[in-house]
Amino acid sequence: MQWQALRLKLKKEMDRAVGVFDSGLGGLTTVKALNELLPNEDIIYFGDTARIPYGSKSRETILKYATQDTNFLKTKNVKMIIAACGTVSSLIGGKNLTSALPFTGVLLPAVQAACAATRTKRIGVIGTLATIQSGSYGKAIKNIEQKAVVIGNACPMFVPLVENGYISGQIAEYFVKEYLTPIKKENVDTLILGCTHYPILKDVIADFMGETVKLISPGEEAAKYASIALLSENLLNEKNEQGINSYYVSDSPESFEQNAARFLGGSINGEVKLASVGVG
Amino acid sequence: MQWQALRLKLKKEMDRAVGVFDSGLGGLTTVKALNELLPNEDIIYFGDTARIPYGSKSRETILKYATQDTNFLKTKNVKMIIAACGTVSSLIGGKNLTSALPFTGVLLPAVQAACAATRTKRIGVIGTLATIQSGSYGKAIKNIEQKAVVIGNACPMFVPLVENGYISGQIAEYFVKEYLTPIKKENVDTLILGCTHYPILKDVIADFMGETVKLISPGEEAAKYASIALLSENLLNEKNEQGINSYYVSDSPESFEQNAARFLGGSINGEVKLASVGVG
Repeated sequence: MQWQALRLKLKKEMDRAVGVFDSGLGGLTTVKALNELLPNEDIIYFGDTARIPYGSKSRETILKYATQDTNFLKTKNVKMIIAACGTVSSLIGGKNLTSALPFTGVLLPAVQAACAATRTKRIGVIGTLATIQSGSYGKAIKNIEQKAVVIGNACPMFVPLVENGYISGQIAEYFVKEYLTPIKKENVDTLILGCTHYPILKDVIADFMGETVKLISPGEEAAKYASIALLSENLLNEKNEQGINSYYVSDSPESFEQNAARFLGGSINGEVKLASVGVG
Repeated sequence: MQWQALRLKLKKEMDRAVGVFDSGLGGLTTVKALNELLPNEDIIYFGDTARIPYGSKSRETILKYATQDTNFLKTKNVKMIIAACGTVSSLIGGKNLTSALPFTGVLLPAVQAACAATRTKRIGVIGTLATIQSGSYGKAIKNIEQKAVVIGNACPMFVPLVENGYISGQIAEYFVKEYLTPIKKENVDTLILGCTHYPILKDVIADFMGETVKLISPGEEAAKYASIALLSENLLNEKNEQGINSYYVSDSPESFEQNAARFLGGSINGEVKLASVGVG
């Protein structure tokens, strides 16, 4: 009987959703990867669309927003939280923004993957201004690979390009060349796409960098990390049905729905609701 | 003695500062015009840099932010408020966001100037997505000029271009051509630059549109309107000394200072302080 009670309690824990947050739409690339890897998990997503973007703002402001986003997901009784925002992840490094829940950003899983992928130990990193200025990718890589050479560059026009649909053609190519030339010159063999918007430009970036350069998408790596963390904590959902995705946003749900397809690779697969987060 | 008391009271009213707000830096073009037109006025500016941009967000969110910005300036005891944000101005139309103070957005002064400038009654309007979707420029113009033909187009890449320094050269020219070709085709003779960032691209826009097209900068027109409103309300500052500019921002004051020069046409001319506005 005690065993039965423990089983039931454990099942209740396993049944809780995985929480994911981002400043807006970019984190949906992580949701997509989670849905593919762990199809039975329920996902609760929060996109802070009323305050997007984070990447051009100050460290203090970004950390305040990330804490509010995390606290919102905690009110939804999630079993794990993924900060699927490259900027937040690079500012917090390895820090857990919750006190008790399993937690990950996208930085450490991406760094681990990059260090596993590189042969020459020459790694490129692109991200928002806040991400590159933090220097956190370089620090984390050197923690694993002391002799690694890390070349970073901020790409502040990539997010507006993706959000306005310039994801191929001459304009996308112009900016890819502009931002990636200093990195290509350094002969990296691995490139971290350190913002969850950037995988949308993957084809143009791959064409420019050449096929010998391995591209790392932090959102996908974070999803892989989450599946291992949940397994090791005995928290994987064991139900047989397809998991349910629920979305919350701080600005218009309609606009989020319209723009989600580019990141999910298909139309929105769950209800989108308005949430008041950090509102005065 | 009663007369003396009244004079003192009036002087106290006149000595109050003019309040100006915007989502970020763009409203500084209005501050620049105010400093030139009314050099003795004190200006208190609020830039909501922690939540910039407004133009891509929903009507409800923008109106909530604008009300919070207005309430912040009211706590500073200003004598008039200018909403120096094209997006806010177009959403509120002629509405006064304060209950008792003289107030203006940039829309109506710009519309008045455009209707005065046009010969052919064919007027172009460019702005953020929220501004163009609101249709408010068209409505306001037709209120004055029933037979006017108004051609609008949203230019969502202009703000990131200006903020990242692409204000001349091939990339600026590409986007000016992309966004303004449909307007040029319609043979407008007057073009409203309906976002306070756009005057920074004025040279490229003027080159593309040709010298017969008159460009209207709403920020400058709002400054002219304010000078008339203050005069007619008997609120012009009569002191002889140069006015003092004070700046408040919701994100990093340092970053605001660094980027202000592009909009002010010179380095920042007043103290910049952090302000908590609409923070949860």
